[in-house]
Amino acid sequence: KKKKKSLERSLRISFTSASYTDSSDDETSPRDKQQKNSKGNGDFCIKNIKQADFGRREIEIAEQEMPALMALRKRAQGEKPLAGAKIVGCTHITAQTAVLMETLSALGAQCRWAACNIYSTQNEVAAALAEGGEAHVFAWKGESEDDFWWCIDRCVNVEGWQPNMILDDGGDLTHWIYKKYPSMFKKIKGIVEESVTGVHRLYQLSKAGKLCVPAMNVNDSVTKQKFDNLYCCRESILDGLKRTTDVMFGGKQVVVCGYGEVGKGCCAALKAMGSIVYVTEIDPICALQACMDGFRLVKLTEVIRQVDIVITCTGNKNVVVRENLDRMKNGCIVCNMGHSNTEIDVASLRTPELTWERVRSQVDHVIWPDGKRIVLLAEGRLLNLSCSTVPTFVLSITATTQALALIELYNAPEGRYKQDVYLLPKKMDEYVASLHLPTFDAHLTELSDEQAKYLGLNKNGPFKPNYYR
Amino acid sequence: KKKKKSLERSLRISFTSASYTDSSDDETSPRDKQQKNSKGNGDFCIKNIKQADFGRREIEIAEQEMPALMALRKRAQGEKPLAGAKIVGCTHITAQTAVLMETLSALGAQCRWAACNIYSTQNEVAAALAEGGEAHVFAWKGESEDDFWWCIDRCVNVEGWQPNMILDDGGDLTHWIYKKYPSMFKKIKGIVEESVTGVHRLYQLSKAGKLCVPAMNVNDSVTKQKFDNLYCCRESILDGLKRTTDVMFGGKQVVVCGYGEVGKGCCAALKAMGSIVYVTEIDPICALQACMDGFRLVKLTEVIRQVDIVITCTGNKNVVVRENLDRMKNGCIVCNMGHSNTEIDVASLRTPELTWERVRSQVDHVIWPDGKRIVLLAEGRLLNLSCSTVPTFVLSITATTQALALIELYNAPEGRYKQDVYLLPKKMDEYVASLHLPTFDAHLTELSDEQAKYLGLNKNGPFKPNYYR
Amino acid sequence: KKKKKSLERSLRISFTSASYTDSSDDETSPRDKQQKNSKGNGDFCIKNIKQADFGRREIEIAEQEMPALMALRKRAQGEKPLAGAKIVGCTHITAQTAVLMETLSALGAQCRWAACNIYSTQNEVAAALAEGGEAHVFAWKGESEDDFWWCIDRCVNVEGWQPNMILDDGGDLTHWIYKKYPSMFKKIKGIVEESVTGVHRLYQLSKAGKLCVPAMNVNDSVTKQKFDNLYCCRESILDGLKRTTDVMFGGKQVVVCGYGEVGKGCCAALKAMGSIVYVTEIDPICALQACMDGFRLVKLTEVIRQVDIVITCTGNKNVVVRENLDRMKNGCIVCNMGHSNTEIDVASLRTPELTWERVRSQVDHVIWPDGKRIVLLAEGRLLNLSCSTVPTFVLSITATTQALALIELYNAPEGRYKQDVYLLPKKMDEYVASLHLPTFDAHLTELSDEQAKYLGLNKNGPFKPNYYR
Amino acid sequence: KKKKKSLERSLRISFTSASYTDSSDDETSPRDKQQKNSKGNGDFCIKNIKQADFGRREIEIAEQEMPALMALRKRAQGEKPLAGAKIVGCTHITAQTAVLMETLSALGAQCRWAACNIYSTQNEVAAALAEGGEAHVFAWKGESEDDFWWCIDRCVNVEGWQPNMILDDGGDLTHWIYKKYPSMFKKIKGIVEESVTGVHRLYQLSKAGKLCVPAMNVNDSVTKQKFDNLYCCRESILDGLKRTTDVMFGGKQVVVCGYGEVGKGCCAALKAMGSIVYVTEIDPICALQACMDGFRLVKLTEVIRQVDIVITCTGNKNVVVRENLDRMKNGCIVCNMGHSNTEIDVASLRTPELTWERVRSQVDHVIWPDGKRIVLLAEGRLLNLSCSTVPTFVLSITATTQALALIELYNAPEGRYKQDVYLLPKKMDEYVASLHLPTFDAHLTELSDEQAKYLGLNKNGPFKPNYYR
Repeated sequence: KKKKKSLERSLRISFTSASYTDSSDDETSPRDKQQKNSKGNGDFCIKNIKQADFGRREIEIAEQEMPALMALRKRAQGEKPLAGAKIVGCTHITAQTAVLMETLSALGAQCRWAACNIYSTQNEVAAALAEGGEAHVFAWKGESEDDFWWCIDRCVNVEGWQPNMILDDGGDLTHWIYKKYPSMFKKIKGIVEESVTGVHRLYQLSKAGKLCVPAMNVNDSVTKQKFDNLYCCRESILDGLKRTTDVMFGGKQVVVCGYGEVGKGCCAALKAMGSIVYVTEIDPICALQACMDGFRLVKLTEVIRQVDIVITCTGNKNVVVRENLDRMKNGCIVCNMGHSNTEIDVASLRTPELTWERVRSQVDHVIWPDGKRIVLLAEGRLLNLSCSTVPTFVLSITATTQALALIELYNAPEGRYKQDVYLLPKKMDEYVASLHLPTFDAHLTELSDEQAKYLGLNKNGPFKPNYYR
Repeated sequence: KKKKKSLERSLRISFTSASYTDSSDDETSPRDKQQKNSKGNGDFCIKNIKQADFGRREIEIAEQEMPALMALRKRAQGEKPLAGAKIVGCTHITAQTAVLMETLSALGAQCRWAACNIYSTQNEVAAALAEGGEAHVFAWKGESEDDFWWCIDRCVNVEGWQPNMILDDGGDLTHWIYKKYPSMFKKIKGIVEESVTGVHRLYQLSKAGKLCVPAMNVNDSVTKQKFDNLYCCRESILDGLKRTTDVMFGGKQVVVCGYGEVGKGCCAALKAMGSIVYVTEIDPICALQACMDGFRLVKLTEVIRQVDIVITCTGNKNVVVRENLDRMKNGCIVCNMGHSNTEIDVASLRTPELTWERVRSQVDHVIWPDGKRIVLLAEGRLLNLSCSTVPTFVLSITATTQALALIELYNAPEGRYKQDVYLLPKKMDEYVASLHLPTFDAHLTELSDEQAKYLGLNKNGPFKPNYYR
Repeated sequence: KKKKKSLERSLRISFTSASYTDSSDDETSPRDKQQKNSKGNGDFCIKNIKQADFGRREIEIAEQEMPALMALRKRAQGEKPLAGAKIVGCTHITAQTAVLMETLSALGAQCRWAACNIYSTQNEVAAALAEGGEAHVFAWKGESEDDFWWCIDRCVNVEGWQPNMILDDGGDLTHWIYKKYPSMFKKIKGIVEESVTGVHRLYQLSKAGKLCVPAMNVNDSVTKQKFDNLYCCRESILDGLKRTTDVMFGGKQVVVCGYGEVGKGCCAALKAMGSIVYVTEIDPICALQACMDGFRLVKLTEVIRQVDIVITCTGNKNVVVRENLDRMKNGCIVCNMGHSNTEIDVASLRTPELTWERVRSQVDHVIWPDGKRIVLLAEGRLLNLSCSTVPTFVLSITATTQALALIELYNAPEGRYKQDVYLLPKKMDEYVASLHLPTFDAHLTELSDEQAKYLGLNKNGPFKPNYYR
Repeated sequence: KKKKKSLERSLRISFTSASYTDSSDDETSPRDKQQKNSKGNGDFCIKNIKQADFGRREIEIAEQEMPALMALRKRAQGEKPLAGAKIVGCTHITAQTAVLMETLSALGAQCRWAACNIYSTQNEVAAALAEGGEAHVFAWKGESEDDFWWCIDRCVNVEGWQPNMILDDGGDLTHWIYKKYPSMFKKIKGIVEESVTGVHRLYQLSKAGKLCVPAMNVNDSVTKQKFDNLYCCRESILDGLKRTTDVMFGGKQVVVCGYGEVGKGCCAALKAMGSIVYVTEIDPICALQACMDGFRLVKLTEVIRQVDIVITCTGNKNVVVRENLDRMKNGCIVCNMGHSNTEIDVASLRTPELTWERVRSQVDHVIWPDGKRIVLLAEGRLLNLSCSTVPTFVLSITATTQALALIELYNAPEGRYKQDVYLLPKKMDEYVASLHLPTFDAHLTELSDEQAKYLGLNKNGPFKPNYYR
């Protein structure tokens, strides 16, 4: 299971870093190299320190679309809310996370960092971080499984330094400490976890009574959910389809399977571009929303012969099966925006009578004996991770949430958080949103005292109940 | 407080019944009349039994847009889930509630009904119900306060008949029984309450430990919330503005105060019709949504001089105050889609230097000394209740929810519901939605066994957690 | 043929004037009354001078949405481009034309006016004009055929006064002068004609060599065409459907017959409100546009059984015939936005087995023997004239065009216009548009000298070739 | 002037062919190579015959989105409307033009072809054509100026073969024949010209009385105009911005200079994706349209400090000048969708105090002394040619128009066309559209005899006057 996820992530990264400098010539393992930056510091392990300049520019570009973190840095000139924090992190090492790391550092923290995925490290960015000296990075693109755990270990197993905060994406770092250095948890004030998988693991630990520090689930914050799904997909479905197929959207017939937030985003974008969109749903409430939003609600079989594009967004498995694929018309594009790689039964296409032809990166033509071609994107994996970009602005929201969760857990008075998994307090969720408003030159209205009293709200929020979406 | 609400409701009704037969000539109180229908039955009290035919046609027209209730009737031909139920109801008496009452009757219930508002009864519909004999109705348009309670009392204070279910809208009926006939609660299996106010009262009773039967809060069901707000407002804002002012939407500058569900509906409709829409918000999360949806987020004062239309949707008070009104440009339209009549400080316009001119029903010109005119709609009360129509389809969803809640409470095995306030089970919420899909010729997809197992769901739902919106 | 047109116009007017004062009691013909205003002037013939105040307010309200004419008045404070003009007009007498007349007067003209339709006069407005004394009006609502021509004659047959300009809508005034006072044309400098019918007559005269003065066809100016069709219909289709049927648009299936400007406006509005729209077309170019805009292009018979609403916009006849009507589903709404009353074969519904039921003004239920009901609007006549409002802003464009055409013809140096029919010069068309921009607080960019030279354009326009649409 | 155009075209091609096989190693000029395909034929001159297979697949993919040409081929199985035609062509040599050439061949023509641009040839496609033997191709990517004319000459200067039809794109081929082989025009039946430049040259020849054969201007056909501008730009503005900058559209403030067809397409797409769009215009009619469509009409200086993206679509020069660029905010993206490379005064940015940084292909950061960066795309050249794709479907419309124009001119009875420049007959324009409808599974309605008579139209069209747009 882990491998598939890794692959997807690596695809995302490999695409977005397509324009980066190539470092494929050098075959020496970073572990065997002497590591030293221009200041003589060598407490890191990366591919090639010479790429630092290139990486620095990428970080600077990312900074421009991560206004909230930059705002946090500014406020930190006075106080250092993370002074004394020793953060060990395990995430993708990209320009965006570099902005996060350097922000944590500016807030007073010391950081040591490994990659959460063996392919996802942008070597140039790692080099820039190593050169800057703000974060001790142990990561490169193309680590072996052994390298992967070696890097994590180098982050935590340091003489004279012990982490007191964990920032994890997937739970591998947390798992490693549990397994190898359980006593470290005595000094650790909390865990911040971003991924669905990692959060799941934490809830299991909690249920089993084995969670020994407070943990913050930042995956389920309102802001992140809304942005990662509805708005992000609204843009990435168009981008993903164009980059792979150059398809014209106007007049195309499209069926979108599933009308959750992802499906809503896809449908809105395609309708806006002049496509005719059909929706399939299992949940009558979402189905009724699709109707009211102006989409014909159908069963897949009703439209499968006529549509030009099939998009899955259900979170389910085998939503598009071989029988459906057999009936699609020539040239039909099939892709997945939903969940993992289960939604389209791609395995069913690996039969002798069908010919596969790789026509571009991430684009396969699957050819039937009668000559009919299906255009399969990303082999059924997530289109928006594989073939389009995730806007930096969306990543900024996640990174800001992570930073605030770290600050909250690190500074919380004893007893506020127990050995359990917490959602980010609503008020901080609202704070993350407020930090992103200046990007849009947006001006928030303030409640008067009288109004706050009338509504029974604090003037500074939270403004909605926790369950509000 | 009650009076204002009554007024608003009466306005809604008076508008939608504008085409109805006039019965204003007859000044005799229904209480003083002999009441008898063509079958000789007289256990009701209405204005004029001769209007029955007209009312019947209105009911028939409403039936066409209330497919879910009609579907329930059909299924009831075999079993009668409300056999033995003795329902006393207190709601608006309109063509739509008539369809509900006659459905309850078809499901096996006996019904006695009063009006929850002294102005809202459609006399013709009451007559049709009385003539039909399915429901014993005690209601007419223009009741006095005394009449109001007299009618309620006639519903419950019957020899040889005692209610075992309550359907209430506003809590007055429940209140009356608590006050006058508390012992009746011994036989009552449950209360179904629709209104915000009534639900609030029930929670208070519950908190105080005084709620002696289970109660179902149907106001907060997902389906009702989504439809009453987002979709209903999307249509009624346009209708309300056109009917009152004939304003052209294209190119108009509009500021919408508040970007909750109501504001989202208003903004979407106006943007779609070519208006330029600005949004004000206090909640940074909703504010960020407004930005992502393509609206400039401003403070009211920034745009107040330039906008052509001001719409309040905040649920707050004094959102538009005299100072704002003073700065609006000549001809600016001001209206409220939000909450009660508090949002616009209309009282501040009742000063000697301003002239009020009633130019149409629900439309006032407020004229400044320099000749500037503000076009104030519905005196700041709810535009969509006062000046536009609430689609029958939306009312259908509410009525179906009420019917299912009654069935659920009436048939629930002992112990399932305690003396508390419950939300409609998610599954029944989904069922209400599913009953409305055939209207759109919408075809739901069914989970396969394998898929249901993969998702950890029952094939028949519920498909989402309770908190899902 | 004339009668039908009259009826349609009268319906439009009767609706929009619904809130007006009722004057039905007075049965004396205006021709038999003594006519005198408060200044003692009596050179007019109207229903009731006492209604002048009400009419004046209506005119003032209209002035607020006719900014271009008001701007012309302001400029006229210096020069009077119509000084010496003696204009005889024959148009609908509404608040909007009153603003036009009083503008012409402010520009220096003397005006005498009759109604172009026996039902369309707003008596209160006529009274206000008579009281104001700026225009001599001879018109009332409910004229007989004889009255109609008597009024026209009173405008032109005046001792000591002879018109030198004609403003006509339908060609009746022009026809009357041709027939009765042909010698008048010696002094007449030109005719401005607005209607399709009137323009057609002028082209016929021109072809026959009988047109003896220049004429300006203002019906085909770009601004008028674009506004009267695309934008006006975008708004009025929604308004027309709501006012008559209160139908909810979300999720409704609609077929729009014809994808010209009118169809484009209807489709855009309905799609925006969440309807699912199908289009029929005969012209492959418009058909391809419909496809690219995201509409399924079908034959009517393919969708007739499933749609909730049928709208005709073709300009053709028998687009919806009995066979189609027989197949529609119960409750289907049928209406016409296109042309005259030919598009729906209403006559085919006048058969014994079908029952007609008038349920509201302009709404008939046609009932099949099996109980199926079709909801027919305005008996197949134009929905937007009969059942919705034409925004004053749109009428403003037409009125401004008329005013400018009069100024142009009146002031043109001899020889610029011959005895032929002309389109409004492109530059004046652009000028009409520019006069309406301030309504939207719109700021036009000016060409620099260098840019104008580069484009080969005059800095003040015209900016596009004549054929540009 | 020619060079700039060439560069732009080459950029377009180089981008879209990014995935193609690299043939950069082989430095021998094709003119010096032995040319021979697998059948032993060598009457062509291309880069490398071994790339034929790859090129063939590209052609096959293109065929799938060029349904109209494929339909023409099918009909040609019976009759050969181009039997005897000897066509010499000079266009871009791409997969799409290959489909055109092979269609002409299937219709009976013999073809010889050169490239109209020294960079635009897709070598693989040229190889496939050479291998197929249907068209004699003389073209490769990276021709010298001398090669360019040599290739054209090889097409026309053939022993025993003389062209009787010309298909030109830019007028170079026509020019060459005029200059070198004027006597050839005796046998030539007509010229079909696609480009603005080429059409301009033809009109000049015609004016000068030097045009000695009929010519067809296919650039100005309705279908082509509407598709190339409105619909194509609606898609390519999003694609162009995403591919170059990965910018998120939601909430971005954008100013679009010019509201012609191109501007309308850009504005519609960006508004639909949640951007806030401002428009500048010089033409009051287009300005009024922008207002009615819901865009604030401003002068560029009013919004230049606040916008995130500036897009020029005016066809004018110096629309964005240094003064504007100086005021833009940090990170502002500047690009051109309009005309040539004149709209943005890029030259003004070539000053010593500004630093240029090439961050990606087609993306420059221009950096002010204070650190402000402007993101300039494609150095101000056309974004959609340089950085996004032109959908094959749009090219299909142009190619079909060219094929039909060739058929029309070749088969026209003597005297139908004189030595002049013609627009494609309206009916053929409609026919091109009709051939593209099956792609959308669109079903055209046919006029009944009665309807055709009523409208005064032929049942088979043309359905609109020539000036209709």
